[in-house]
Amino acid sequence: MDQKALFSLQYGVFVLGSHFEGRINACITNTCFQAASDPVRIAVSVMNSNLTCEMIKQSGSFALSVLDSRCTFETIKNFGYQSGRNVNKFADFPYVLDESGNPYLTNEICAVLSAKVVKTVDLGTHSLFIAEITDAKTLSQSSPITYIGYQKVIKPKLVVNTEKKIIGWRCKICGYVYEGAELPADFICPLCGHPASDFEPIYEQ
Amino acid sequence: MDQKALFSLQYGVFVLGSHFEGRINACITNTCFQAASDPVRIAVSVMNSNLTCEMIKQSGSFALSVLDSRCTFETIKNFGYQSGRNVNKFADFPYVLDESGNPYLTNEICAVLSAKVVKTVDLGTHSLFIAEITDAKTLSQSSPITYIGYQKVIKPKLVVNTEKKIIGWRCKICGYVYEGAELPADFICPLCGHPASDFEPIYEQ
Repeated sequence: MDQKALFSLQYGVFVLGSHFEGRINACITNTCFQAASDPVRIAVSVMNSNLTCEMIKQSGSFALSVLDSRCTFETIKNFGYQSGRNVNKFADFPYVLDESGNPYLTNEICAVLSAKVVKTVDLGTHSLFIAEITDAKTLSQSSPITYIGYQKVIKPKLVVNTEKKIIGWRCKICGYVYEGAELPADFICPLCGHPASDFEPIYEQ
Repeated sequence: MDQKALFSLQYGVFVLGSHFEGRINACITNTCFQAASDPVRIAVSVMNSNLTCEMIKQSGSFALSVLDSRCTFETIKNFGYQSGRNVNKFADFPYVLDESGNPYLTNEICAVLSAKVVKTVDLGTHSLFIAEITDAKTLSQSSPITYIGYQKVIKPKLVVNTEKKIIGWRCKICGYVYEGAELPADFICPLCGHPASDFEPIYEQ
Protein backbone atom coordinates (compact mmCIF):
# COMPACT_ATOMS: atom_id res chain seq x y z
CA MET A 1 0.00 0.00 0.00
CA ASP A 2 1.30 3.43 -0.98
CA GLN A 3 0.15 5.77 1.82
CA LYS A 4 1.44 8.77 -0.16
CA ALA A 5 -1.54 8.30 -2.47
CA LEU A 6 -3.55 9.90 0.35
CA PHE A 7 -1.67 13.17 -0.29
CA SER A 8 -3.53 13.48 -3.62
CA LEU A 9 -6.75 14.36 -1.77
CA GLN A 10 -7.39 18.10 -2.09
CA TYR A 11 -8.24 20.14 0.99
CA GLY A 12 -8.76 23.71 2.09
CA VAL A 13 -6.99 25.07 5.18
CA PHE A 14 -9.03 26.39 8.08
CA VAL A 15 -8.73 28.00 11.49
CA LEU A 16 -11.22 26.10 13.63
CA GLY A 17 -12.30 28.09 16.68
CA SER A 18 -14.26 27.06 19.75
CA HIS A 19 -14.75 28.08 23.35
CA PHE A 20 -15.49 26.68 26.80
CA GLU A 21 -15.91 28.24 30.24
CA GLY A 22 -14.82 31.69 29.20
CA ARG A 23 -11.76 30.55 27.24
CA ILE A 24 -11.38 30.62 23.49
CA ASN A 25 -9.00 28.65 21.31
CA ALA A 26 -8.48 27.56 17.72
CA CYS A 27 -6.40 25.09 15.73
CA ILE A 28 -5.56 24.49 12.08
CA THR A 29 -7.49 21.79 10.26
CA ASN A 30 -7.65 20.87 6.58
CA THR A 31 -10.62 18.55 6.80
CA CYS A 32 -14.02 20.04 6.18
CA PHE A 33 -16.59 19.23 3.51
CA GLN A 34 -20.27 19.75 2.94
CA ALA A 35 -21.72 16.31 3.68
CA ALA A 36 -25.43 16.84 2.95
CA SER A 37 -27.63 19.45 1.31
CA ASP A 38 -31.08 19.21 2.89
CA PRO A 39 -30.67 19.87 5.70
CA VAL A 40 -27.18 21.29 5.10
CA ARG A 41 -24.55 19.42 7.07
CA ILE A 42 -20.80 19.84 7.15
CA ALA A 43 -18.26 17.31 8.44
CA VAL A 44 -14.99 18.29 10.17
CA SER A 45 -12.30 16.00 11.56
CA VAL A 46 -10.09 17.12 14.47
CA MET A 47 -7.31 15.41 16.44
CA ASN A 48 -8.58 14.25 19.84
CA SER A 49 -5.47 15.51 21.62
CA ASN A 50 -6.16 19.13 20.51
CA LEU A 51 -7.59 21.53 23.09
CA THR A 52 -9.96 22.82 20.39
CA CYS A 53 -11.35 19.31 19.97
CA GLU A 54 -12.07 19.11 23.70
CA MET A 55 -13.76 22.52 23.59
CA ILE A 56 -15.99 21.52 20.66
CA LYS A 57 -17.05 18.40 22.59
CA GLN A 58 -17.99 20.61 25.53
CA SER A 59 -19.59 23.57 23.75
CA GLY A 60 -21.09 21.58 20.85
CA SER A 61 -20.25 24.36 18.41
CA PHE A 62 -17.43 25.93 16.39
CA ALA A 63 -16.57 28.64 13.86
CA LEU A 64 -14.58 27.65 10.78
CA SER A 65 -12.47 30.46 9.25
CA VAL A 66 -11.64 29.68 5.60
CA LEU A 67 -8.06 30.88 4.98
CA ASP A 68 -7.51 32.68 1.68
CA SER A 69 -4.55 33.58 -0.54
CA ARG A 70 -3.47 36.43 1.76
CA CYS A 71 -2.70 33.90 4.51
CA THR A 72 0.88 34.00 5.87
CA PHE A 73 2.95 31.30 7.50
CA GLU A 74 2.75 33.28 10.76
CA THR A 75 -0.96 32.52 10.93
CA ILE A 76 -0.46 28.80 10.31
CA LYS A 77 2.38 28.68 12.85
CA ASN A 78 0.40 30.56 15.48
CA PHE A 79 -2.71 28.37 15.27
CA GLY A 80 -1.15 25.08 14.12
CA TYR A 81 2.28 24.72 15.68
CA GLN A 82 1.57 25.38 19.34
CA SER A 83 -1.06 24.44 21.91
CA GLY A 84 -3.70 26.68 23.41
CA ARG A 85 -2.88 24.96 26.71
CA ASN A 86 0.35 26.99 26.83
CA VAL A 87 -0.45 30.23 25.02
CA ASN A 88 -3.33 32.52 24.14
CA LYS A 89 -3.31 32.08 20.36
CA PHE A 90 -5.53 35.12 19.85
CA ALA A 91 -3.24 37.56 21.69
CA ASP A 92 -1.92 39.08 18.43
CA PHE A 93 -4.67 38.14 15.98
CA PRO A 94 -7.81 40.24 15.49
CA TYR A 95 -10.96 38.16 15.86
CA VAL A 96 -14.70 38.36 16.33
CA LEU A 97 -16.97 36.06 18.35
CA ASP A 98 -19.91 34.50 16.52
CA GLU A 99 -23.37 34.24 18.11
CA SER A 100 -22.37 31.09 19.99
CA GLY A 101 -19.18 32.70 21.33
CA ASN A 102 -16.72 31.00 18.95
CA PRO A 103 -13.81 33.08 17.63
CA TYR A 104 -13.12 33.62 13.94
CA LEU A 105 -10.43 35.68 12.24
CA THR A 106 -11.10 39.03 10.59
CA ASN A 107 -8.00 39.00 8.34
CA GLU A 108 -6.75 36.52 5.72
CA ILE A 109 -10.09 34.69 5.48
CA CYS A 110 -12.66 34.70 2.70
CA ALA A 111 -15.54 33.09 4.59
CA VAL A 112 -16.66 31.86 7.97
CA LEU A 113 -19.05 29.05 8.81
CA SER A 114 -20.60 28.86 12.26
CA ALA A 115 -21.91 25.43 13.14
CA LYS A 116 -23.58 23.38 15.83
CA VAL A 117 -22.55 19.73 16.27
CA VAL A 118 -25.37 17.23 15.68
CA LYS A 119 -23.31 14.04 15.82
CA THR A 120 -19.79 13.05 16.89
CA VAL A 121 -18.02 9.92 15.64
CA ASP A 122 -14.90 8.84 17.56
CA LEU A 123 -12.25 7.54 15.14
CA GLY A 124 -9.42 6.83 17.60
CA THR A 125 -6.87 9.56 16.86
CA HIS A 126 -9.56 11.98 15.65
CA SER A 127 -13.18 12.94 16.22
CA LEU A 128 -15.44 13.50 13.23
CA PHE A 129 -17.99 16.23 13.93
CA ILE A 130 -21.13 16.39 11.79
CA ALA A 131 -22.70 19.81 12.19
CA GLU A 132 -25.51 22.05 11.04
CA ILE A 133 -24.68 25.53 9.78
CA THR A 134 -26.05 28.22 12.08
CA ASP A 135 -24.50 31.12 10.20
CA ALA A 136 -22.37 31.60 7.08
CA LYS A 137 -20.67 34.76 5.83
CA THR A 138 -18.57 35.61 2.78
CA LEU A 139 -15.90 38.06 3.93
CA SER A 140 -13.77 38.65 0.83
CA GLN A 141 -13.41 37.71 -2.81
CA SER A 142 -9.88 36.32 -2.30
CA SER A 143 -9.48 32.66 -3.29
CA PRO A 144 -9.48 30.00 -0.58
CA ILE A 145 -6.09 28.28 -0.35
CA THR A 146 -5.59 24.55 -0.78
CA TYR A 147 -3.47 22.41 1.51
CA ILE A 148 -1.22 21.47 -1.43
CA GLY A 149 -0.87 25.18 -2.31
CA TYR A 150 0.05 25.95 1.30
CA GLN A 151 2.77 23.25 1.21
CA LYS A 152 4.18 24.64 -2.05
CA VAL A 153 3.86 28.40 -1.62
CA ILE A 154 3.27 29.52 1.97
CA LYS A 155 5.30 27.04 4.00
CA PRO A 156 9.02 27.95 4.26
CA LYS A 157 11.48 25.34 3.08
CA LEU A 158 13.38 23.50 5.81
CA VAL A 159 16.82 24.94 6.61
CA VAL A 160 19.16 22.36 8.14
CA ASN A 161 22.27 23.34 10.11
CA THR A 162 24.93 21.13 8.53
CA GLU A 163 27.54 21.89 11.20
CA LYS A 164 25.63 20.12 13.93
CA LYS A 165 24.90 16.41 14.16
CA ILE A 166 21.23 15.48 13.74
CA ILE A 167 20.11 12.77 16.16
CA GLY A 168 16.37 12.77 15.44
CA TRP A 169 13.36 14.52 13.93
CA ARG A 170 10.35 16.04 15.70
CA CYS A 171 6.90 16.37 14.16
CA LYS A 172 5.99 20.06 14.43
CA ILE A 173 2.30 19.23 14.44
CA CYS A 174 2.03 16.75 17.31
CA GLY A 175 5.53 16.43 18.83
CA TYR A 176 6.18 12.81 17.83
CA VAL A 177 9.95 12.05 17.78
CA TYR A 178 11.66 9.92 15.14
CA GLU A 179 15.05 8.66 16.32
CA GLY A 180 17.79 8.64 13.69
CA ALA A 181 19.84 11.05 11.58
CA GLU A 182 17.93 10.54 8.35
CA LEU A 183 14.19 10.81 8.11
CA PRO A 184 12.90 8.90 5.05
CA ALA A 185 11.35 11.33 2.53
CA ASP A 186 8.12 9.30 2.45
CA PHE A 187 7.87 9.09 6.25
CA ILE A 188 4.42 9.73 7.67
CA CYS A 189 3.92 10.64 11.33
CA PRO A 190 2.33 7.57 12.98
CA LEU A 191 0.57 9.83 15.48
CA CYS A 192 -0.99 12.61 13.38
CA GLY A 193 -0.46 11.46 9.79
CA HIS A 194 1.56 14.48 8.65
CA PRO A 195 4.39 14.08 6.11
CA ALA A 196 8.19 14.32 6.51
CA SER A 197 8.07 18.00 5.54
CA ASP A 198 6.34 18.74 8.87
CA PHE A 199 9.32 17.44 10.87
CA GLU A 200 12.21 19.55 12.21
CA PRO A 201 15.67 18.25 13.07
CA ILE A 202 16.80 17.57 16.67
CA TYR A 203 20.48 18.41 17.04
CA GLU A 204 22.99 16.82 19.42
CA GLN A 205 23.52 19.14 22.42
CA MET B 1 -27.12 33.29 6.21
CA ASP B 2 -25.05 33.38 3.02
CA GLN B 3 -25.09 29.79 1.70
CA LYS B 4 -22.58 30.78 -1.01
CA ALA B 5 -19.95 30.89 1.73
CA LEU B 6 -20.05 27.08 1.51
CA PHE B 7 -18.53 27.33 -1.98
CA SER B 8 -15.27 28.51 -0.41
CA LEU B 9 -14.57 24.98 0.85
CA GLN B 10 -11.91 23.36 -1.33
CA TYR B 11 -12.48 19.86 -2.69
CA GLY B 12 -10.91 17.38 -5.06
CA VAL B 13 -13.02 15.67 -7.73
CA PHE B 14 -13.33 11.90 -7.74
CA VAL B 15 -14.86 9.02 -9.66
CA LEU B 16 -16.32 6.78 -6.96
CA GLY B 17 -16.75 3.18 -8.14
CA SER B 18 -18.58 0.27 -6.55
CA HIS B 19 -20.22 -3.01 -7.52
CA PHE B 20 -23.07 -5.34 -6.58
CA GLU B 21 -24.33 -8.63 -7.96
CA GLY B 22 -22.08 -8.63 -11.02
CA ARG B 23 -22.77 -4.99 -11.96
CA ILE B 24 -20.33 -2.13 -11.65
CA ASN B 25 -21.06 1.58 -11.53
CA ALA B 26 -19.47 4.87 -10.54
CA CYS B 27 -20.46 8.48 -9.87
CA ILE B 28 -18.70 11.80 -9.40
CA THR B 29 -18.17 13.04 -5.88
CA ASN B 30 -16.13 15.93 -4.52
CA THR B 31 -16.31 14.97 -0.88
CA CYS B 32 -13.51 12.84 0.49
CA PHE B 33 -11.02 13.56 3.24
CA GLN B 34 -8.68 11.64 5.48
CA ALA B 35 -10.53 11.63 8.79
CA ALA B 36 -8.08 9.78 11.06
CA SER B 37 -4.46 8.66 10.98
CA ASP B 38 -4.15 5.61 13.25
CA PRO B 39 -5.89 3.57 12.03
CA VAL B 40 -6.18 5.47 8.75
CA ARG B 41 -9.80 6.34 7.98
CA ILE B 42 -11.28 8.29 5.10
CA ALA B 43 -14.76 9.84 4.96
CA VAL B 44 -16.81 10.10 1.76
CA SER B 45 -20.28 11.59 1.33
CA VAL B 46 -22.60 10.35 -1.45
CA MET B 47 -26.16 11.26 -2.46
CA ASN B 48 -28.59 8.54 -1.31
CA SER B 49 -30.46 8.59 -4.64
CA ASN B 50 -27.29 7.54 -6.55
CA LEU B 51 -27.02 3.93 -7.71
CA THR B 52 -23.38 3.96 -6.57
CA CYS B 53 -24.53 4.85 -3.05
CA GLU B 54 -26.86 1.84 -3.03
CA MET B 55 -24.06 -0.41 -4.29
CA ILE B 56 -21.66 0.79 -1.57
CA LYS B 57 -24.30 0.04 1.06
CA GLN B 58 -24.62 -3.49 -0.34
CA SER B 59 -20.98 -4.32 -1.07
CA GLY B 60 -19.49 -2.34 1.83
CA SER B 61 -16.59 -1.20 -0.33
CA PHE B 62 -15.55 1.27 -3.03
CA ALA B 63 -12.63 2.49 -5.14
CA LEU B 64 -11.97 6.24 -5.30
CA SER B 65 -10.23 7.45 -8.48
CA VAL B 66 -8.56 10.85 -7.92
CA LEU B 67 -9.02 12.89 -11.11
CA ASP B 68 -5.97 14.85 -12.24
CA SER B 69 -5.24 17.80 -14.53
CA ARG B 70 -5.66 15.67 -17.68
CA CYS B 71 -9.35 15.16 -16.83
CA THR B 72 -11.80 16.21 -19.58
CA PHE B 73 -15.41 17.32 -19.33
CA GLU B 74 -16.39 14.08 -21.15
CA THR B 75 -15.28 12.10 -18.09
CA ILE B 76 -17.24 14.31 -15.68
CA LYS B 77 -20.31 14.18 -17.95
CA ASN B 78 -20.15 10.42 -18.35
CA PHE B 79 -19.90 9.63 -14.65
CA GLY B 80 -21.70 12.64 -13.18
CA TYR B 81 -24.52 13.68 -15.51
CA GLN B 82 -26.31 10.37 -16.11
CA SER B 83 -27.46 7.40 -14.04
CA GLY B 84 -26.00 3.91 -14.10
CA ARG B 85 -29.60 2.73 -13.94
CA ASN B 86 -29.95 3.72 -17.62
CA VAL B 87 -26.48 3.26 -19.10
CA ASN B 88 -23.26 1.31 -18.62
CA LYS B 89 -20.95 4.20 -17.72
CA PHE B 90 -17.84 2.07 -18.27
CA ALA B 91 -18.70 1.14 -21.89
CA ASP B 92 -16.18 3.63 -23.34
CA PHE B 93 -13.85 4.16 -20.39
CA PRO B 94 -10.88 1.86 -19.67
CA TYR B 95 -10.92 0.57 -16.10
CA VAL B 96 -9.47 -2.02 -13.75
CA LEU B 97 -11.18 -3.85 -10.89
CA ASP B 98 -9.54 -3.65 -7.47
CA GLU B 99 -9.25 -6.68 -5.18
CA SER B 100 -12.81 -6.20 -3.93
CA GLY B 101 -14.22 -5.94 -7.47
CA ASN B 102 -14.66 -2.14 -7.53
CA PRO B 103 -13.83 -0.33 -10.80
CA TYR B 104 -11.31 2.49 -11.07
CA LEU B 105 -10.15 4.43 -14.10
CA THR B 106 -6.77 3.91 -15.75
CA ASN B 107 -6.63 7.31 -17.48
CA GLU B 108 -6.84 10.88 -16.14
CA ILE B 109 -6.25 9.86 -12.52
CA CYS B 110 -3.21 10.35 -10.32
CA ALA B 111 -4.15 7.95 -7.52
CA VAL B 112 -6.69 5.37 -6.43
CA LEU B 113 -7.83 4.50 -2.92
CA SER B 114 -9.62 1.20 -2.28
CA ALA B 115 -11.63 1.16 0.90
CA LYS B 116 -13.93 -0.91 3.08
CA VAL B 117 -16.78 0.81 4.90
CA VAL B 118 -16.57 0.59 8.71
CA LYS B 119 -19.45 2.96 9.55
CA THR B 120 -22.31 4.62 7.67
CA VAL B 121 -24.05 7.77 8.90
CA ASP B 122 -27.38 8.63 7.23
CA LEU B 123 -27.66 12.41 6.72
CA GLY B 124 -30.99 12.57 4.90
CA THR B 125 -30.05 13.51 1.33
CA HIS B 126 -26.62 11.86 1.65
CA SER B 127 -24.84 8.98 3.34
CA LEU B 128 -21.48 9.57 4.97
CA PHE B 129 -19.24 6.51 4.67
CA ILE B 130 -16.29 6.15 7.04
CA ALA B 131 -13.91 3.60 5.60
CA GLU B 132 -10.56 1.91 6.12
CA ILE B 133 -8.05 1.93 3.27
CA THR B 134 -7.44 -1.60 1.93
CA ASP B 135 -5.16 -0.49 -0.91
CA ALA B 136 -3.70 2.80 -2.22
CA LYS B 137 -1.76 3.43 -5.38
CA THR B 138 -0.12 6.51 -6.93
CA LEU B 139 -0.67 6.26 -10.70
CA SER B 140 0.83 9.47 -12.09
CA GLN B 141 2.63 12.64 -11.06
CA SER B 142 -0.10 14.89 -12.56
CA SER B 143 -1.71 17.27 -10.07
CA PRO B 144 -5.11 16.38 -8.62
CA ILE B 145 -7.77 18.86 -9.74
CA THR B 146 -9.85 20.93 -7.36
CA TYR B 147 -13.62 21.37 -7.65
CA ILE B 148 -13.14 25.14 -8.04
CA GLY B 149 -10.55 24.49 -10.79
CA TYR B 150 -12.99 22.16 -12.53
CA GLN B 151 -15.69 24.87 -12.46
CA LYS B 152 -13.29 27.48 -13.88
CA VAL B 153 -11.25 25.50 -16.40
CA ILE B 154 -12.78 22.15 -17.39
CA LYS B 155 -16.51 22.86 -17.33
CA PRO B 156 -17.82 24.46 -20.56
CA LYS B 157 -19.66 27.75 -20.20
CA LEU B 158 -23.43 27.60 -20.62
CA VAL B 159 -24.70 28.41 -24.12
CA VAL B 160 -28.29 29.64 -24.11
CA ASN B 161 -30.44 29.59 -27.25
CA THR B 162 -31.86 33.13 -27.25
CA GLU B 163 -34.39 32.39 -30.02
CA LYS B 164 -36.43 30.02 -27.88
CA LYS B 165 -38.41 30.92 -24.78
CA ILE B 166 -37.04 29.51 -21.54
CA ILE B 167 -39.75 28.19 -19.21
CA GLY B 168 -37.57 26.57 -16.55
CA TRP B 169 -34.17 25.26 -15.48
CA ARG B 170 -33.14 21.66 -14.78
CA CYS B 171 -30.34 20.67 -12.39
CA LYS B 172 -28.00 18.51 -14.47
CA ILE B 173 -26.80 16.72 -11.36
CA CYS B 174 -30.07 15.47 -9.85
CA GLY B 175 -32.84 16.48 -12.26
CA TYR B 176 -34.57 19.03 -9.99
CA VAL B 177 -36.69 21.48 -12.00
CA TYR B 178 -36.90 25.22 -11.23
CA GLU B 179 -39.97 26.82 -12.84
CA GLY B 180 -39.43 30.28 -14.30
CA ALA B 181 -37.51 32.00 -17.08
CA GLU B 182 -34.78 33.45 -14.92
CA LEU B 183 -32.76 31.37 -12.50
CA PRO B 184 -31.22 33.60 -9.80
CA ALA B 185 -27.40 33.57 -10.07
CA ASP B 186 -27.07 32.58 -6.42
CA PHE B 187 -29.67 29.79 -6.68
CA ILE B 188 -28.69 26.54 -4.98
CA CYS B 189 -30.44 23.27 -5.86
CA PRO B 190 -32.60 22.38 -2.84
CA LEU B 191 -32.21 18.67 -3.66
CA CYS B 192 -28.46 18.20 -4.23
CA GLY B 193 -26.94 21.53 -3.21
CA HIS B 194 -25.31 22.32 -6.58
CA PRO B 195 -25.08 25.91 -7.82
CA ALA B 196 -26.95 27.71 -10.66
CA SER B 197 -24.06 26.88 -13.03
CA ASP B 198 -25.11 23.22 -12.91
CA PHE B 199 -28.57 24.02 -14.32
CA GLU B 200 -29.55 23.86 -18.00
CA PRO B 201 -32.49 25.74 -19.60
CA ILE B 202 -35.80 24.04 -20.43
CA TYR B 203 -37.24 25.55 -23.62
CA GLU B 204 -40.91 25.88 -24.58
CA GLN B 205 -41.82 23.13 -27.05
